[in-house]
Amino acid sequence: MSTPDNTFAQTPEPPYYAVIFTSTRTPVDEGYGAMADRMVELASRQPGFLGVESARGADGLGITVSYWASLEAISAWKSNSEHRVAQATGNRKWYEHFETRVARVERAYGGPRT
Amino acid sequence: MSTPDNTFAQTPEPPYYAVIFTSTRTPVDEGYGAMADRMVELASRQPGFLGVESARGADGLGITVSYWASLEAISAWKSNSEHRVAQATGNRKWYEHFETRVARVERAYGGPRT
Repeated sequence: MSTPDNTFAQTPEPPYYAVIFTSTRTPVDEGYGAMADRMVELASRQPGFLGVESARGADGLGITVSYWASLEAISAWKSNSEHRVAQATGNRKWYEHFETRVARVERAYGGPRT
Repeated sequence: MSTPDNTFAQTPEPPYYAVIFTSTRTPVDEGYGAMADRMVELASRQPGFLGVESARGADGLGITVSYWASLEAISAWKSNSEHRVAQATGNRKWYEHFETRVARVERAYGGPRT
């Protein structure tokens, strides 16, 4: 993995932006894990990237939340050419269904044992 | 479970709000599953509740995103008395660490096979 598992994103004080990507997978694996790792690596080098958190449960539902400094940073990531190829391949073979939501984080707080 | 597994929230057109709750668990189980189910059931009866999506990966990181019509609906849910007891118990024994982020969803789109 290009990022450690089980990690929280270290985000600054709000406001900033979140992309909430919820998905279910097809049974097709062909390169999925390598693509997912590569996208995290690539995203983390984009200007305005703040962090990412990801989980996929045993029931198959996955949630990945990436955090960004601005809507412009999100647009730039969305149109990154290698990311576009991954999106197209995801649409065609890896994802059964997905929802993407772009949101402005207005408040954040953590607890305990930070 | 009080909600079906592996389901997407059926949210309206933006804007609406999301509460992104990212957590790691302690090894303590004592009533955790029952509490989690009960909180989903209780939240879903709150005014302004729009839906919830939840995943916890094998590495232990969990992400639950609940969707709400307004910040007022989120405040009312946060101060719900039974929810407050669950929050206090969670702080004390179920959660190793958590982050809560309140965000305004501005754009949403899905793909394929809706």
